[in-house]
Amino acid sequence: MKAIIILFCTFLSFSVFGQFPKFDRLLYGAEYYYEYIPTDRLDKDVELIKQAGFNTVRMGESTWSSFEPVEGKFEFAWFDRVMDAMHKANIKVIIGTPTYAVPQWLVRKYPDIMVKTLAGGQAEYGSRQNMDITHPDYRKYSERIIRQLIARYCKHPAVIGYQIDNETKSYQTSSDRAKAMFVEFLKAKYHTVDSLNQCLNLAFWSQKISKWDELHISNACANKGLVWEWKCFQRSLASGFLKWQAAIVNEYKQPGQFITQNFDFYWTDAFSSGPQPEVDHFDAAQYIDVVGIDVYHPMQDELDGRIISYCGDEARSIKRNNFLCMETGAQTMSWTPAGCFPPYDGQVRLCFYSMIACGANMVQYWPWQSIHNGGENYVKGVIGHDFETGRAYNEVSKIAAEVKSIGSHLINMEKKNNVAVLYSIDAQNACDVLEYSKKYTYSQTLVHFYNAMYRQNIEMDIITPQSNNWNDYKIIIIPTLYLASDKLLNKINDYV
Amino acid sequence: MKAIIILFCTFLSFSVFGQFPKFDRLLYGAEYYYEYIPTDRLDKDVELIKQAGFNTVRMGESTWSSFEPVEGKFEFAWFDRVMDAMHKANIKVIIGTPTYAVPQWLVRKYPDIMVKTLAGGQAEYGSRQNMDITHPDYRKYSERIIRQLIARYCKHPAVIGYQIDNETKSYQTSSDRAKAMFVEFLKAKYHTVDSLNQCLNLAFWSQKISKWDELHISNACANKGLVWEWKCFQRSLASGFLKWQAAIVNEYKQPGQFITQNFDFYWTDAFSSGPQPEVDHFDAAQYIDVVGIDVYHPMQDELDGRIISYCGDEARSIKRNNFLCMETGAQTMSWTPAGCFPPYDGQVRLCFYSMIACGANMVQYWPWQSIHNGGENYVKGVIGHDFETGRAYNEVSKIAAEVKSIGSHLINMEKKNNVAVLYSIDAQNACDVLEYSKKYTYSQTLVHFYNAMYRQNIEMDIITPQSNNWNDYKIIIIPTLYLASDKLLNKINDYV
Amino acid sequence: MKAIIILFCTFLSFSVFGQFPKFDRLLYGAEYYYEYIPTDRLDKDVELIKQAGFNTVRMGESTWSSFEPVEGKFEFAWFDRVMDAMHKANIKVIIGTPTYAVPQWLVRKYPDIMVKTLAGGQAEYGSRQNMDITHPDYRKYSERIIRQLIARYCKHPAVIGYQIDNETKSYQTSSDRAKAMFVEFLKAKYHTVDSLNQCLNLAFWSQKISKWDELHISNACANKGLVWEWKCFQRSLASGFLKWQAAIVNEYKQPGQFITQNFDFYWTDAFSSGPQPEVDHFDAAQYIDVVGIDVYHPMQDELDGRIISYCGDEARSIKRNNFLCMETGAQTMSWTPAGCFPPYDGQVRLCFYSMIACGANMVQYWPWQSIHNGGENYVKGVIGHDFETGRAYNEVSKIAAEVKSIGSHLINMEKKNNVAVLYSIDAQNACDVLEYSKKYTYSQTLVHFYNAMYRQNIEMDIITPQSNNWNDYKIIIIPTLYLASDKLLNKINDYV
Repeated sequence: MKAIIILFCTFLSFSVFGQFPKFDRLLYGAEYYYEYIPTDRLDKDVELIKQAGFNTVRMGESTWSSFEPVEGKFEFAWFDRVMDAMHKANIKVIIGTPTYAVPQWLVRKYPDIMVKTLAGGQAEYGSRQNMDITHPDYRKYSERIIRQLIARYCKHPAVIGYQIDNETKSYQTSSDRAKAMFVEFLKAKYHTVDSLNQCLNLAFWSQKISKWDELHISNACANKGLVWEWKCFQRSLASGFLKWQAAIVNEYKQPGQFITQNFDFYWTDAFSSGPQPEVDHFDAAQYIDVVGIDVYHPMQDELDGRIISYCGDEARSIKRNNFLCMETGAQTMSWTPAGCFPPYDGQVRLCFYSMIACGANMVQYWPWQSIHNGGENYVKGVIGHDFETGRAYNEVSKIAAEVKSIGSHLINMEKKNNVAVLYSIDAQNACDVLEYSKKYTYSQTLVHFYNAMYRQNIEMDIITPQSNNWNDYKIIIIPTLYLASDKLLNKINDYV
Repeated sequence: MKAIIILFCTFLSFSVFGQFPKFDRLLYGAEYYYEYIPTDRLDKDVELIKQAGFNTVRMGESTWSSFEPVEGKFEFAWFDRVMDAMHKANIKVIIGTPTYAVPQWLVRKYPDIMVKTLAGGQAEYGSRQNMDITHPDYRKYSERIIRQLIARYCKHPAVIGYQIDNETKSYQTSSDRAKAMFVEFLKAKYHTVDSLNQCLNLAFWSQKISKWDELHISNACANKGLVWEWKCFQRSLASGFLKWQAAIVNEYKQPGQFITQNFDFYWTDAFSSGPQPEVDHFDAAQYIDVVGIDVYHPMQDELDGRIISYCGDEARSIKRNNFLCMETGAQTMSWTPAGCFPPYDGQVRLCFYSMIACGANMVQYWPWQSIHNGGENYVKGVIGHDFETGRAYNEVSKIAAEVKSIGSHLINMEKKNNVAVLYSIDAQNACDVLEYSKKYTYSQTLVHFYNAMYRQNIEMDIITPQSNNWNDYKIIIIPTLYLASDKLLNKINDYV
Repeated sequence: MKAIIILFCTFLSFSVFGQFPKFDRLLYGAEYYYEYIPTDRLDKDVELIKQAGFNTVRMGESTWSSFEPVEGKFEFAWFDRVMDAMHKANIKVIIGTPTYAVPQWLVRKYPDIMVKTLAGGQAEYGSRQNMDITHPDYRKYSERIIRQLIARYCKHPAVIGYQIDNETKSYQTSSDRAKAMFVEFLKAKYHTVDSLNQCLNLAFWSQKISKWDELHISNACANKGLVWEWKCFQRSLASGFLKWQAAIVNEYKQPGQFITQNFDFYWTDAFSSGPQPEVDHFDAAQYIDVVGIDVYHPMQDELDGRIISYCGDEARSIKRNNFLCMETGAQTMSWTPAGCFPPYDGQVRLCFYSMIACGANMVQYWPWQSIHNGGENYVKGVIGHDFETGRAYNEVSKIAAEVKSIGSHLINMEKKNNVAVLYSIDAQNACDVLEYSKKYTYSQTLVHFYNAMYRQNIEMDIITPQSNNWNDYKIIIIPTLYLASDKLLNKINDYV
C-alpha cells in the first residue's frame, strides 16, 4: 500500500516539474531595476525599452528590501506601476523570486541566517548569496515573500514566467544543522558506520567512528573521500532548494507560464568558463521548465565565441531543448574599471546570433541601465550612467528590428550533433579534491577538448554519465575520468 | 542667543589651536630613548649628543610603561634625570605623549581596548597602534598619563614643544561602538534613512533600511558608497582624536611652546611614498601648531631626493608654513637585514639640505642609538649597536657644524611656487573603493605627475579642494579626479 | 644532601634513557597498515613481504581508533592476528605508539584537546598532529592507550623495538595553559621581571611588565627576543613530550628492545631538506635509544643523493652512532598526482646504499601498500593500488637478496670524517625571527655549504654548539651564526 502511494507522489511531482513551455516568439530584452535608479524614470525608460524593440524584461530578483522594507509590511504599489507600464507597452515580464539577497532587517533579527563556513566563521552581511539556504527562518521568510509576490502578479497579463532565485548554490553552508544533514546524507548512502569506515578508510590517521554523531567534518578534513562526499552533499542542497522554491511557485503558475533559473558557470579565471562544480545543472534542472543561463565573456580582441558556444551547448543539452539566456552584457562586463572593454561595433550582434545558434529562445542584457551606486557599477547596461542612448542602444535596436522581421525563423531551433563530450561532475570534484593537476582544473581540461573541436567547427552536445542518449553520437569525448563507478565504465564499454 | 555662543566657542577654539610658533634657530637632533638602552649611558650619550652639535631631542612618545609601570603608580625620577641632563647640555626637548603604544597592564585590565577589525576579529597585544582610539577606558587612562607627564614637564626649561601621539590613525576601529558612531556620522550627513537609501542605492542587492539601527557595516559590504563613507568616518576619528589630545596639552602649553604631530605618508611599497588616505593631514593639522612629518626613503643608488621632496612639499603646503622633520634615518631605514643599505658618504648631508630646501625648520634622526632588542633593530641610529661613533656620527657632526655657522640663513625659509598639484583624499578613497586600477593607486598616480615635474626641476605645492589659494598658481595639475562634487567642478571651472 | 639526591636522579635517568641497542643484522622492510586495506589481505601480504625478503615492519603508529574504537573499549584481537602472522613468517616488528593522530571520540569528548594557535584560533579535527600535546586529558588518554598497547605486546617474540609518537612537534600549542607554561619557562631563565624587561627591552613600545602574569604573548608580538624565546619554549615542549612517552615505554621495554622516534626534517620547499627548527633533534634524542628519521626526496632526474646524505649524516651525528631510516619511498613520494615521479630502474637500490653508507642499520619503505582512500593516496607503496607486485617490488626484492648475502658487512658501519658543519638551532631561530634574508632560510644556507662539500665528495658530520667532539675535526664550517652566546664564541676561538 505504501509503495503505491509513493509511486503516486513521484508521478505527481513529475507532472508538476519540468514541463517545457511553448515559445511563440523570440524573446529579447534586459533586466530592469526601477528601484536602483535615483530618479523616477519609469515612463522614459519604458519608452526607450519599447523604442529599442525589446519585448521582455526580467525584474524583482534582487528586490526583497524594496518589496518588504519592514518585516511583514509589503510595498507593491511601486511595482504595480512598473508592471502596468510594461504591460501597456506590451513588454512581457519574467519575475524573479527575490531570495538570493536578503534584507538587513532579516539578518538583524536572525543573525544566524548568515552562512557559516567550514572553517568555522560566519559570513558578514553586506553582499548577496551569503545566507544559509537550509535555515528554517530563512526558508520561512523566503516562502512568505515568494507567496506574496507571485500571488499578486501571477495573473498579471504581462507575466510570462518566473525565475526562482538566482545563480543558486549552497554557499558551502556548514552550520551544525548542515553538518547533521550531512551525516543523514551519509547514512542514506552508507547505511552503517562500519560501511562508512571501510569504504572511506576512516581508519586512516585514526578517524574511525563507532557512532554517527562522532563524525567531524571541517576544512581540516584530510580524508579525501569524505571531502568528496561533502561536495556531493552541498550540490544536493542547491538542487533541493530549487525543488522547494519551484514547488511553491508551481502553486501559482498559470497555464502558459514557465519556471526557469539563472544557471551560471564556473568562472575560474576572468571570463574562462566551464561546467559548474558547485551545483549540478543537470540534476537541478529537473525542477524547472526551461533552462536559463548567464553568459559573461570578454569583448574586443578577446571575443572568440567559444564561451558563448560552450554555455549555450550545455544549456541546450541539459533538457535537450531550447533555453533562455537570462543575462549577458551589452557593454562592459567587469566589476572593476580596469576590466572594462566596451565591445567593438557589431560584436553585440555577433554574440546575439551565436547564442541563437546554440538554441536560445531569449537573450536578455544585464542590466538595462548602468547602476550609479551600490555595486556592479562597471557592468554597464544598455544605456549608460548618463541616461543617454548610445552605441550599445543603437546596436541592440538594430538587432531587435531583425528579430522582428526574421525572429520566427530563429525560434525553437533544433540541433543534431554527432559529437558529445562527457561531463562527470563526480570526476570533476574528484580532480578538485585530489589536486589532480596544478595547472588545469577538470573544468579547464574539458574546455580544452571542447575548444579544440570548436576551432575545427565541430559542434557538440554535453552529456553526463546519466544521459540516456549516448547512442545518438558517433563520437563521445571523455575528459579526465578521474573517478568512475563500475556502472559508468560498463556503459562506456557498451557504447564502444 | 545660541548662535552667538557657538560663534564664541568657535573663535575660542581657533585661538587655542594652530598658532604657528616662532623658530629662532634651526633645530637639529635625534630621538633619544634612554629607557631602551641596556646600561645607564645617560652621561656618555648626552656628551656625544652635545659633541655632535645636536641642539634638540624628542623623547617619551613610546614610553608609557616606563612612566606608569603599574596602574596609577608613576615613575618620573629617571626621566627627570634625563631632562635635567639635556637641559644642562643646552639640548632642547620635544616631549611626545605616550599614547600610541599601550602598556600590558592596561590591556590585561581592559582587553576590550584592543582594536576590533571590520572582519570581526580583535587585535592581539604585542605591537603598537593596535588600540581602539575611541574607547572610553583608553581615553581615560591616556588622559591621565598625558596630564601627569605634561603637567610635570611643561615648565621645564628644556621643553620647547610637544608631539601629540605618533603617526596617528584610527586603525580601522570597528567595535560595536565605532559602528554606532558611524551611523551617527551618516545621520549627520544624510539626515533620513530614505535619503541614505536613495543616495547610496541601498536597494541594490536588497539592503534598504527602514531604521538607522538596521544598518550593517562589515568587510563584506558590497555597497561602494557605504565603504567610501566608512573611510571618511575613519579619517574623522583620527582628526577627532588629535583634536582631543591637543585640547588637553593646550591646557599646559607655555608661551613659546608648540604642539606638533608626526604625520606619516602612504608607503604602498618599500619606500615609495605618497599622500596618506587613512588620515587627512590637511584636516588634522588644524589642531596642531606646526606640522611634523617622518620621511623614510632608500639610500645608496636608490636615493633620488624625490621622496624627501614630496613629503617636504606636502608638509609645507599643509599650513603654508615651515615644518619639522620629526624622523628620518642617519643610517639604514629598514626593519629587516635584507633591506639595510647604509648611505654612502655625503648622502645624509644631501638629504638634510633637501629637507631644509622644502622648508624644514628641524631635522631629527630616528633614533639616536641603534636598538639592541625589542623591535626595529635594523633602523640603525646615529650611533651603532656597538655604542661607538662612526661614519654616521661624523657626518651629522659635520652637518651640525654647518648649521651652527649658517643656520640662521636656513631657517623660516619661504617658497613661492607657480605650480600646484591637487590632492583630493575623496578621490583617493574612491579609487581605492572602486578598484580604479590594478596597477596604480591614486597615491602612485599623483606621485607620477609629481615625479615628472620633479625631474624637470619644477617645484610644486600641494593643494586640496578646500584650499583657498588656487589663484596663486599658474598651473594646477589634477590627477585622476575620480570623485568630485559639483562645488569642486565649479571651482575648477572658475580657476580655468 | 639535596645535591646528592639530584645527582642520583640524574644518574638514574641517564641509565634509563638512551642506551644504544645491539643490531646483529641489517633491518629491511616497510610500514604495514592492515587496518587501511579494504579487504582482508593478511596472509597474502605476509607472504609477499616474506617473499620480497623483508625482515621487519613498523605498525601501529596511526591506529588509535582501531585499537580503541570506543572510549575504554580496546580491540587488539585483529592486531594479535597480524603480530602472530608476522612472527610466524619471522618478520620483526617495531610498534609505534599511536599518539600523533587522535580518534574522533576523544575530540568530541574533549574539544579543547585540539591545539590552539598563537593567532587565537583552534585547529579543527580532520587531520593528524593537531592536538595540544600538553593537554592533561590528551596525556591521560595517550598514556592509557600506550600502556594497553605496549603491555600487551612487549613480550611478543616479534617485537624488537618501539617508535614513540611520530614526527613529534609542539604544533605551536598556544592555549592559556601553554602561555602560562611559557611564563614559567621565562621565569626559570630570567628569574625576575626586571631582568626580563631589561634583557628583552620590553620598554620598547611600552611593553614593560611589573608582574609575570601581565606578559602577553601572541602572533602580534613585535618583540623579537620574546618571539625567539617562544620558539625555544616550543622546542622544549616537543622534547618534554618525548621524554614523557619514553619514560612510560621504558617501564615495559624488554632487554634487547629499543626505543626510537621518527625525526623529520625541515621541508621548506618540495623535497629540499635541512635541519628542523621546530624540534631540536639533538636535544630530544637523549630520551631515545637509537635515532630514526624519515627521508623524502625527488626521484628521476632530480635525484642527486644530497638529501639522503644530509639526513643520514645528521641522523648519524646526533648520537654519533648508527641510525634507522624509518620511512622512505619505494615509488612516488608526493601527496598530489602532479608531484608523482616514479623512480627509474635502479634508483631505489641507489638510495638504499646511500643510506647504508651514511650509517643506517635499517631502511623501511612507507608504506607497504598504496592506500586506496583516506589521504596520502599518492605516496605509493611497495605494491600498487592494484595489489600486484611490480617494478618496485622487484627492485626491493633484489636489494633484499643482496642484504641477505652481504648484510653482515653493511651493518654497524663506522664513519670518520674530518669536516663538520656547525648547526645552531638558536641561530636558526634568530634568522627566522629577524628575517635575516628574504631569499634563504638558515636551513637553506647551511645546506648550501653542505651541498658544496657534497659535490666535492667531502663527507661531513653535523655538530652543535653543545657537541664535545669539535676537536675531532680538521675543518668546522659555521654557517650564518646570527646569534651566539659568549660561551659559544669562546669555544670557537678555542677551537681555532
